[in-house]
Amino acid sequence: MDRTAIGELNEKVGSEVRVAGSVSVRRDHGKLIFFDLRDQSGTVQAVVTPKVDAHKVASEMRPEWAVRVGGVVNKRPDNMVNSEIPLGDIELEVKEIEVLGRAQELPFDTDAELNIDTHLDYLPLTLRTKKSRAIFKVQSEIAYAFRDSLKKCGFTEFQAPKIIGEDAEGGASVFEVEYFDNKANLAQSPQFYKQIMVGVFEKVFSVGSVFRAEKHKTTRHLNEYTSLDIEMGYIEDHTDVMKFTSGLMRVINEHLKETCKEEFELLGAEFPSIPEEIPYMKLREAQELIKAEFGEDGVGAPDLEPQHERMISEYAKNQFDSDFVFVTHFPTSKRPMYTYPDEEDPTYTKGFDLLFRGLEILTGSQRIHDYDQLVESMKKKGLVPEKFSFYLQAFKYGMPPHGGFGMGLERLTARFLGLDNVKEATLFPREINRIDTLLSE
Amino acid sequence: MDRTAIGELNEKVGSEVRVAGSVSVRRDHGKLIFFDLRDQSGTVQAVVTPKVDAHKVASEMRPEWAVRVGGVVNKRPDNMVNSEIPLGDIELEVKEIEVLGRAQELPFDTDAELNIDTHLDYLPLTLRTKKSRAIFKVQSEIAYAFRDSLKKCGFTEFQAPKIIGEDAEGGASVFEVEYFDNKANLAQSPQFYKQIMVGVFEKVFSVGSVFRAEKHKTTRHLNEYTSLDIEMGYIEDHTDVMKFTSGLMRVINEHLKETCKEEFELLGAEFPSIPEEIPYMKLREAQELIKAEFGEDGVGAPDLEPQHERMISEYAKNQFDSDFVFVTHFPTSKRPMYTYPDEEDPTYTKGFDLLFRGLEILTGSQRIHDYDQLVESMKKKGLVPEKFSFYLQAFKYGMPPHGGFGMGLERLTARFLGLDNVKEATLFPREINRIDTLLSE
Repeated sequence: MDRTAIGELNEKVGSEVRVAGSVSVRRDHGKLIFFDLRDQSGTVQAVVTPKVDAHKVASEMRPEWAVRVGGVVNKRPDNMVNSEIPLGDIELEVKEIEVLGRAQELPFDTDAELNIDTHLDYLPLTLRTKKSRAIFKVQSEIAYAFRDSLKKCGFTEFQAPKIIGEDAEGGASVFEVEYFDNKANLAQSPQFYKQIMVGVFEKVFSVGSVFRAEKHKTTRHLNEYTSLDIEMGYIEDHTDVMKFTSGLMRVINEHLKETCKEEFELLGAEFPSIPEEIPYMKLREAQELIKAEFGEDGVGAPDLEPQHERMISEYAKNQFDSDFVFVTHFPTSKRPMYTYPDEEDPTYTKGFDLLFRGLEILTGSQRIHDYDQLVESMKKKGLVPEKFSFYLQAFKYGMPPHGGFGMGLERLTARFLGLDNVKEATLFPREINRIDTLLSE
Repeated sequence: MDRTAIGELNEKVGSEVRVAGSVSVRRDHGKLIFFDLRDQSGTVQAVVTPKVDAHKVASEMRPEWAVRVGGVVNKRPDNMVNSEIPLGDIELEVKEIEVLGRAQELPFDTDAELNIDTHLDYLPLTLRTKKSRAIFKVQSEIAYAFRDSLKKCGFTEFQAPKIIGEDAEGGASVFEVEYFDNKANLAQSPQFYKQIMVGVFEKVFSVGSVFRAEKHKTTRHLNEYTSLDIEMGYIEDHTDVMKFTSGLMRVINEHLKETCKEEFELLGAEFPSIPEEIPYMKLREAQELIKAEFGEDGVGAPDLEPQHERMISEYAKNQFDSDFVFVTHFPTSKRPMYTYPDEEDPTYTKGFDLLFRGLEILTGSQRIHDYDQLVESMKKKGLVPEKFSFYLQAFKYGMPPHGGFGMGLERLTARFLGLDNVKEATLFPREINRIDTLLSE
């Protein structure tokens, strides 16, 4: 008999079925054994009477055993109906149980609230909880909506390499790789490659791991994360990229409303409010605003502190009913050499950060596309253009005006779901002292 | 005026339009200047008469300049129609040219056949050729079809980490990373994580970079490539995975027929023939066959040599009209510790390779899902189970029977397109002596 998805059992009342899944919990009532069985589609209550041979197996079963069960789907008696849960009006009367995989006793009650370190120590188990499954279902749908939407807008996906040569930008937070007889590095972003690819496909995107050797352990930082990157040619300026980003965020949000309503409910998360055009302000304006509205004087600083990001987000929420807000025009001196300076005041860039519920989730800009201007910009930053010869070819051989952004999938997931710690939205987070298990000091 | 896609200009005859793109080639005929302008949607011939101001700019233009052009779409005179190419019956009469990005003189004729090293030295330029764009368009559609098909079959995508801890399997071909005060490695596959994720989502897939520190420089090997990975729970045995793989390959092929016909034509590639169930044979049978049919005695060897893979493929093509063939039952001693041994003869595994037009593109198997059996298998291989404690949790806490495969996107692309060297199907190939540019010896 073919396997029936548990979520479809309510269409099989009175029928004999075969299902398979993991035991969630077992409850014995006298000689009756009840257990919850879950598969990807849902959870059903099963009941085993002492009349069937399966009773012996059932009496040994523990949570997380993988089993195949044959039985009959029954309506529950009226007084046993649980209308709070899906399939709460049926139960599976067990005829046969085949054990597919045994489990040892669980180290703790997986439904309990765990501290983050215990959660991380036991990921192969704790990722199976309803909460974790909801988070990573949402994450997979975000990645899907991102790519699907871009494909429909004529973007071409490409695979960016992660092993890169010498770090010509001299960044501090780069991981070093032993590459045969040479040293190489792990890419902090696919930046150079996506710009090169604009020359090839005009509009491109890439989804992949990036690596940051940040020593600090915070609720915002990851040493490895998934970067959602786009780059688009033939723009007028950075505002084209920002407008496109607004539309993309709305599409992702709509997709989640369609596919992840249950998961949002389970996690107590609210869908964000995203206006047709996300509001934006210059860094300097944001700083004046923070001073005027919140009494914090950060005017003139080259960037926003985390609490400032939260203030600006609060302001945008109150003023524009937007959970998102762009901050533009960071100082040229603090942004990478490829960032386009504003012609009106070249000390500031045509670059932007996107804040989502108080946290920066995305950084983008128009890029310099003129070869001479780019070489000049490198020199101003004290960089050696010869070290960028491969990248510079793209500009030597003609590039249109272009811009793009990089966005952290884990941060985006966490903000959508209102999770305080980005690690909750990261399947296997890498920390300074943890790669799956704790590292020796 | 909004930008019109060049591919749609045939619908605009008689109208004034604005287009943007890269100059492909310029030809001067007396005072008339002709140039080909390409964007993502197509290429059109533009003509500039001496009457317009743009004539001066046009006379300076070189291939790969990015320009915006205003003009009128005209039918070509009958004797000028080129019915061999799309848009060969129209031309753009130029009124205005705005230069968006200049290009220096190209180092060579990009339409010429280049040797692979020159191609790699100049990727930011050579990837722009028709041939390269066709290859990587096909690649992006393969990745799309892979994911789309899996999502429709109820698989959940997940992001696998690339930085992993100490290489407990002791593989020779692993890259080492300086991870703060510890040593880490780059993942050779997402194997452990996808198995862990079967416990979470039952059926999962992942697309991402994997890393092999292979010292040999061949037409088949890459030091970094994109792995398409699936893992599925509740299988009966490895043949379930093989059947699923057959279906998946057919879906990808159908998708390419729908979306990449032009690209296949341009590259002189033929769509493969894939029976509903791809034929399969055991390694020993394959070896006997090679001996009988081709006179090469490899009977008893633990694996197939490259020429043997070609022979088996040739046989499958002739015998079953299949461009794909599975080889199963490799020796347990030569396969990883998680591979399921065949109960009928445990010296061979329930594992398989998939050959596509003479090259192995995919390796898969049923996996051991019982904790004790897995620990035992590790010990038999001389491995220390304690070093796998994180991975082993998945099995300690219950796993269903499961299996899956890993497949190289670049090899798959190359085989679809009949490219001899997998590097032609790799955007930025990493070689022992090359990361974009040549490394010092």
